[in-house]
Amino acid sequence: MALSEKSKKTQDHVLKTTRAILMANGFHNTTINDIIKATGVKKGNLYYHFSSKEEICLAVLEDAKEEFFTFLAQSLQGDSPCAKVVNSCQAIIVAQKKQILVGGCLFGNAALEMSDSNPRFATVLQDVFVHWVGVIDAQLSLAGPDCSLNTNLSPSVLAKAIVATIEGGIMMSRVSKEPADLDDCFVVIKAMLGK
Amino acid sequence: MALSEKSKKTQDHVLKTTRAILMANGFHNTTINDIIKATGVKKGNLYYHFSSKEEICLAVLEDAKEEFFTFLAQSLQGDSPCAKVVNSCQAIIVAQKKQILVGGCLFGNAALEMSDSNPRFATVLQDVFVHWVGVIDAQLSLAGPDCSLNTNLSPSVLAKAIVATIEGGIMMSRVSKEPADLDDCFVVIKAMLGK
Repeated sequence: MALSEKSKKTQDHVLKTTRAILMANGFHNTTINDIIKATGVKKGNLYYHFSSKEEICLAVLEDAKEEFFTFLAQSLQGDSPCAKVVNSCQAIIVAQKKQILVGGCLFGNAALEMSDSNPRFATVLQDVFVHWVGVIDAQLSLAGPDCSLNTNLSPSVLAKAIVATIEGGIMMSRVSKEPADLDDCFVVIKAMLGK
Repeated sequence: MALSEKSKKTQDHVLKTTRAILMANGFHNTTINDIIKATGVKKGNLYYHFSSKEEICLAVLEDAKEEFFTFLAQSLQGDSPCAKVVNSCQAIIVAQKKQILVGGCLFGNAALEMSDSNPRFATVLQDVFVHWVGVIDAQLSLAGPDCSLNTNLSPSVLAKAIVATIEGGIMMSRVSKEPADLDDCFVVIKAMLGK
């Protein structure tokens, strides 16, 4: 194996393992030593790849962002723009329900813990929310009035509320430990779309 | 001033000052020394009133919970149950918009930071969400089909989604630094209610 491939493998191992720790314990509560212990990567090797804990955490968010954007694009399944929005929301909710008891939504957690104190985190999180809202907005704009129960709502406003309902639903599910709370939010999202 | 009144005043000062620190910096990131510095209360006096940082933080949440429940009850203004729900959501959103740039929603922050790691926090937060959903559910049940755009939605499911939309909207506003994002969520909540 070439060194660059080995490096890439180490980086990816650090990113995926650290993601799980950050989801379970939060950003402030995670130390470099926690990351060293969980990854088994020696301190010197870790600092060869990443210059600080902040850089590791930002790289974790960027990695999760790219993964989410790919997932989001693939989730737009269906015969119509409206079906694509419904199926995308359902796919995200199904995936999130599996994570409710192991940390919830990494972006939502980081939004509340890090976006005020660190503008670099806020920038990545803003990318995630703007892109997600934009993807839904684009489909709702294609769908026209058939994909909203209230024709006075603009697609961009409705798209923003859909993302808010999913993120708030994840938060409530984490407190109640009831993944089914997210299903209730999905029922109302479908109703917002007239489905 | 009697000692008990003085004690009460000290406790209240600690709770309100610590609430502001927790909103700005989060729970894990706040130390006992931060609280001592911000309140000006000496360590011995602080430990006379509260046995640990955990106890202070729990008391802050309980204090904020009681304040929110009073605010919620007073926010149910209007001639009909449906008007009461709309006005309550608006009052909460107006209040939250003022806090977007200084920490957002204490309950939402604590939900994502503390509910997994500390069951005592999760219990208080579950109280907040269950009570809030219950208050909206009760009004929607009184209002009947006139207060929902989709008559197939049960009041309890719609009430849960309304709280989720507000909490998710606060999260998105904190990342975008745009309090107006919450107004967009309010427009969609009104549409959910057929208003």
